[in-house]
Amino acid sequence: MKPEPQLVLDAKLPTSTVEHLEEVNEAFVLSPSRQFGFEDRPIPTLRTARDVRVRIIATGLCGSDVHYWQHGRIGNYVVNDPIVLGHESAGIVEACGEDVKHLKVGDRVALEPGVGCNTCETCRSGRYNLCDSMRFAATPPYDGTLSTFYCLPEECCYKLPPHISMREGSLVEPLSIAVHCCGLAGNLQGRTVAVFGAGPIGLLCCAVARAFGAAKVVIVDVVDSRLEFAKGFGAHQTYKMQSQSPEANVEKLQVETRLEGGANVVIDATGAEPCINCGVAVLRRGGTFIQAGLGSPRISFPIGQICDKEATLKGSFRYGPGDYKLAIELLNSNRICLGDLITHEFSFSEAEKAFNNVAGRSGIKTVIYGPGVDKAMAKQAAA
Amino acid sequence: MKPEPQLVLDAKLPTSTVEHLEEVNEAFVLSPSRQFGFEDRPIPTLRTARDVRVRIIATGLCGSDVHYWQHGRIGNYVVNDPIVLGHESAGIVEACGEDVKHLKVGDRVALEPGVGCNTCETCRSGRYNLCDSMRFAATPPYDGTLSTFYCLPEECCYKLPPHISMREGSLVEPLSIAVHCCGLAGNLQGRTVAVFGAGPIGLLCCAVARAFGAAKVVIVDVVDSRLEFAKGFGAHQTYKMQSQSPEANVEKLQVETRLEGGANVVIDATGAEPCINCGVAVLRRGGTFIQAGLGSPRISFPIGQICDKEATLKGSFRYGPGDYKLAIELLNSNRICLGDLITHEFSFSEAEKAFNNVAGRSGIKTVIYGPGVDKAMAKQAAA
Amino acid sequence: MKPEPQLVLDAKLPTSTVEHLEEVNEAFVLSPSRQFGFEDRPIPTLRTARDVRVRIIATGLCGSDVHYWQHGRIGNYVVNDPIVLGHESAGIVEACGEDVKHLKVGDRVALEPGVGCNTCETCRSGRYNLCDSMRFAATPPYDGTLSTFYCLPEECCYKLPPHISMREGSLVEPLSIAVHCCGLAGNLQGRTVAVFGAGPIGLLCCAVARAFGAAKVVIVDVVDSRLEFAKGFGAHQTYKMQSQSPEANVEKLQVETRLEGGANVVIDATGAEPCINCGVAVLRRGGTFIQAGLGSPRISFPIGQICDKEATLKGSFRYGPGDYKLAIELLNSNRICLGDLITHEFSFSEAEKAFNNVAGRSGIKTVIYGPGVDKAMAKQAAA
Amino acid sequence: MKPEPQLVLDAKLPTSTVEHLEEVNEAFVLSPSRQFGFEDRPIPTLRTARDVRVRIIATGLCGSDVHYWQHGRIGNYVVNDPIVLGHESAGIVEACGEDVKHLKVGDRVALEPGVGCNTCETCRSGRYNLCDSMRFAATPPYDGTLSTFYCLPEECCYKLPPHISMREGSLVEPLSIAVHCCGLAGNLQGRTVAVFGAGPIGLLCCAVARAFGAAKVVIVDVVDSRLEFAKGFGAHQTYKMQSQSPEANVEKLQVETRLEGGANVVIDATGAEPCINCGVAVLRRGGTFIQAGLGSPRISFPIGQICDKEATLKGSFRYGPGDYKLAIELLNSNRICLGDLITHEFSFSEAEKAFNNVAGRSGIKTVIYGPGVDKAMAKQAAA
Repeated sequence: MKPEPQLVLDAKLPTSTVEHLEEVNEAFVLSPSRQFGFEDRPIPTLRTARDVRVRIIATGLCGSDVHYWQHGRIGNYVVNDPIVLGHESAGIVEACGEDVKHLKVGDRVALEPGVGCNTCETCRSGRYNLCDSMRFAATPPYDGTLSTFYCLPEECCYKLPPHISMREGSLVEPLSIAVHCCGLAGNLQGRTVAVFGAGPIGLLCCAVARAFGAAKVVIVDVVDSRLEFAKGFGAHQTYKMQSQSPEANVEKLQVETRLEGGANVVIDATGAEPCINCGVAVLRRGGTFIQAGLGSPRISFPIGQICDKEATLKGSFRYGPGDYKLAIELLNSNRICLGDLITHEFSFSEAEKAFNNVAGRSGIKTVIYGPGVDKAMAKQAAA
Repeated sequence: MKPEPQLVLDAKLPTSTVEHLEEVNEAFVLSPSRQFGFEDRPIPTLRTARDVRVRIIATGLCGSDVHYWQHGRIGNYVVNDPIVLGHESAGIVEACGEDVKHLKVGDRVALEPGVGCNTCETCRSGRYNLCDSMRFAATPPYDGTLSTFYCLPEECCYKLPPHISMREGSLVEPLSIAVHCCGLAGNLQGRTVAVFGAGPIGLLCCAVARAFGAAKVVIVDVVDSRLEFAKGFGAHQTYKMQSQSPEANVEKLQVETRLEGGANVVIDATGAEPCINCGVAVLRRGGTFIQAGLGSPRISFPIGQICDKEATLKGSFRYGPGDYKLAIELLNSNRICLGDLITHEFSFSEAEKAFNNVAGRSGIKTVIYGPGVDKAMAKQAAA
Repeated sequence: MKPEPQLVLDAKLPTSTVEHLEEVNEAFVLSPSRQFGFEDRPIPTLRTARDVRVRIIATGLCGSDVHYWQHGRIGNYVVNDPIVLGHESAGIVEACGEDVKHLKVGDRVALEPGVGCNTCETCRSGRYNLCDSMRFAATPPYDGTLSTFYCLPEECCYKLPPHISMREGSLVEPLSIAVHCCGLAGNLQGRTVAVFGAGPIGLLCCAVARAFGAAKVVIVDVVDSRLEFAKGFGAHQTYKMQSQSPEANVEKLQVETRLEGGANVVIDATGAEPCINCGVAVLRRGGTFIQAGLGSPRISFPIGQICDKEATLKGSFRYGPGDYKLAIELLNSNRICLGDLITHEFSFSEAEKAFNNVAGRSGIKTVIYGPGVDKAMAKQAAA
Repeated sequence: MKPEPQLVLDAKLPTSTVEHLEEVNEAFVLSPSRQFGFEDRPIPTLRTARDVRVRIIATGLCGSDVHYWQHGRIGNYVVNDPIVLGHESAGIVEACGEDVKHLKVGDRVALEPGVGCNTCETCRSGRYNLCDSMRFAATPPYDGTLSTFYCLPEECCYKLPPHISMREGSLVEPLSIAVHCCGLAGNLQGRTVAVFGAGPIGLLCCAVARAFGAAKVVIVDVVDSRLEFAKGFGAHQTYKMQSQSPEANVEKLQVETRLEGGANVVIDATGAEPCINCGVAVLRRGGTFIQAGLGSPRISFPIGQICDKEATLKGSFRYGPGDYKLAIELLNSNRICLGDLITHEFSFSEAEKAFNNVAGRSGIKTVIYGPGVDKAMAKQAAA
């Protein structure tokens, strides 16, 4: 890696002055043998006249990125060829195809990293997140965004409001996941919501549920510091999960958080069997349980309670129509402030360190700046 | 038991000629020690001016009735006091409270055996089946319908169409369960549906799914004769479940029933872990899984697939607004013909034999006629 | 009217000290000849064991109250017999039937003034506001709440949060109308909403739409002062309706309020033909139009646009399941502050003056205090 | 026009034998001065690699085609340049782009004549029928299908079941309109439906409502013969609209068709003010009114009843996701039989005669066969 030139991140500065600073496309690549390395790759070309090329400024790390590194696969998705990871990114439009209508060079955008086919029955019926031909960043065989440039169609690029920095813009992806989860839960106005897991997704679900009008949001975790953090992030009440039966936990949870009668909605962002069992137990009759977190693919599950309560359990998969737009509107209107969610920041040359940091479960959210983005300036910009 | 007088069941005969044949209320009672016996009980009085008293003509037996007999409890519902079982009944209105508006003595009715409070938040919001104060027949501490008379509010009595016999009328209860399940599954027009379990509920779900416009209905069971029966009951295709992994079963199921791509909707009427796992595996992305059957309260469950597929799993609990009305309309319009679903019939004095018959898993549906209803006549009527 | 004793309204004072101050039930009565008068009426008795008797503290006046006074009828509802008007009330529970579970004497409550039958198909399916047997206060032949006492079932009485005064509590009724309107409009998160009419209902719709997450709320009226008021009541933008064609108004509205592409949702709280036509014109394709206001029963209507836009038009009728509860939660969480909505207050003896005030379209909301409630104290309490 | 070669229409014959019979693309063209003429036009080329070219076999005429001819415009769509009309077509795939996956040359298909952009917010959210960039056949400036060939993307071509002739296949378009209307009306199982207008759309709505499980379908028209036809097309009851007030018509309608309490759903396929008013009047409280027919863009409308009944009025615009697929499934399963809906058939050279026929309101549905399709053979095929 050569010395990184400076790129201004401050949201208030005119982005039209951004220039094409270098002619290479640096990429942070994971090999099938699970080794990281840097490569100079060809600058990606626009696939269609509706594509734009984005210079990546900031990329948040997700548990799935780390999982590919540590295990070489997620389910049926296997790292058989070198792959660029990363899919939670914000950047600046650097080139536009000739049919691009709504974007121009210099626009600051959050990237929706999945490109459906737009023509299958699933896409046309408004559930493109379930498209069987989805090309999703950092999911084999498709490269991710930990590189200088990334191309995608204009409808996958969402302009950031002026007061949102690109550092925060990289969080639009997990925020959209939370928006999708809460959207699946139906009308939350006046409802009680219990969120299991105070990692980034759980915390964002907490904030979104509050913004969507939940009368009471309870967050559950095992780590005191995360619960403490959650209090400033939408949670009315917190509960520290105990090593007990679901029933004992539920009883204690309901007393401590004054959640008599249970929760209308439960969102599990852990994927952990004890949490899912506790979550179903705390669910009110007729309630809705959203499974957001991926953990063990198979668990011991209280199916009988689902019947007795006539409960609805929904899996949540990425995000769909309107989720990115709404996520940005929540930021634009200050109904959600991302605040201190990003606890660790790394320059591109420190990318492997960033992965180690996430693997060590330190802090909440870790961001890697794009090649050529100065970390000091980035911090300043974020201030 | 005294000799049973005759009561005409033929749907075509005028019911206004039905007379008050006896002055006792015979009941078939289960003791806490799980012994059956007959008792002469007081004729029940109307609780409110909106109640009617119904002379019970026919009562279908349900797995739950047999379960109370064999185990003395279902979950938290325990037979602590003698209880009358039975809740799938049709009968003739014998007395009306002064505020009853829509029924008169002699009306032939199917009984909805659950009486909600009508005033709690749950009832008022249209989900009375989840009312915490529900008084449900044959669920401790409330007596069921295996007696001469039974009282309930007029809104729980649904007039039978002229061409439906009361023998068939006793099946309106399980038919309403199937209507409720299929209703929870959303719009079935043109959809593919897989039903697991070819017992009464599974078969009725099969027929209702077909009536609701499903393009393909596949039924799955382990008993050849039941699968054969299902062919005349709405199923387009049948699959005999093998002792294999869910994956192997799914693959074979999809080939044999030409269900490429899986089912939009799965209804499990077994409660059995292998079926539920096979059902989730055969579910298409974005599909809906209805859990109708109660089995083991806890199973090994593929939660990961629920996320990957963004599937919806709904528990189904009894029936709610409109279900009985629609069940009767399906019969009225001949869109569902109950045909040979009732395979065994017993007079009231043979009630214990009937329980033994169901426990032995013989046939499909077993009916017990009310006290004073002549079995021979009943068979004729049903012809 | 005798001198009115004092009753403390301050929300912070213990309500358990409220005493039965007088033994008469004073009522403000409208005669069929449209004359007002005061009458001493019998103290109403509880209709059922689930009823409570409420001492009325404050009653807001509604356009319908004034309409009955001025025209002697609304549609098919005719004042053929003397009637007590008023239905937007808050009060203190003064007596409880023996089956009342959730309320006790001294509770401060907002009244839901419509009592459905709870047993018809409509009520049981969760749309009790459409019950054909609805007994609605101040709708002939049922008396309203402008009296010392009023009886109704406990499920129609909603406890007020401690920090909400009963003066504000009288606004829970119109707030529930707004909650119902906005609920009919579907998910408002991130949507653009145009509200026509800045009277009490329009303003409250404005505030509720904002609380429900609308990204932009535009209010339209012809009176500058009302538009000004709306700015502090949830409106992002205001538009002063001009005496022009709907098309000209729409064009100007869209420019002035930067509502390019139109509104996702339009709520008409005027019932006026020009507003409805402008509203349909400003509606985006696929949008939803809520008709909240009652005006002329028949108008010239652009049905063609409804088709071209595949728009949905919904009439909104009173309030249904959950609306009162949510209205109170919005107040409880301070997501809606009623602030200066009440512009005029009258003691019970001044009731006719209050009607004249509303008829003169002075201010926004007019409240009449119950018999025996001291106006000076009331104002203090509201401070 | 040269003598037309023969093309076999019989659904049972192998379509793989269809050959490229001629090298010209004959088109029936309407000039801006509203004169019809025949033109030899270039054979259309595939726009994208996902396009197919279809040889048009049969095209139904729609009121909009005739309206363009008679008035030179519909609303803002003006015939400023010569245009080919026709959009209700079935044909045989004659060429496939290289990315076409699901079709091959020789496939018999019904054409969905609207091509959305697939990438705008509206398309991506599953409402592509409202796409602002929609390219719709026979809507200026886009040519229609009354020509030898027509190109469109593969997702707009739906394979016909073997037993459905292409003559019938041309009716899949109006059938999809009916499917869309009935879909907008929500769950029709057990509901009462009144359809106004017994033209092709009204009749098809009638048949679809019946197939969707309506308990009672009433059709209303002014022409006896159409009402008679409707009896074999799904209607349980018919009503001949009288020259009376809506109220008088409603009263008579309800008595004659035993529609006590009104209809849950009303579908207006006339666009006529008296029908719409009668329809709203017959609507039950809480009911849904679907406006399918386009007539006068502005009518006198009973807005007050919409509020009183808390009714929902939805405009229906063309068809959206799943409608074509479901229309074909209804044919495939014989739940809808198109029977004698096509009353008039013309060869391509008689196209103007066909337009005159429709303008003269003779019969129900008029079909024009494609260039080179022999009418005699077509009739035989349809037998």
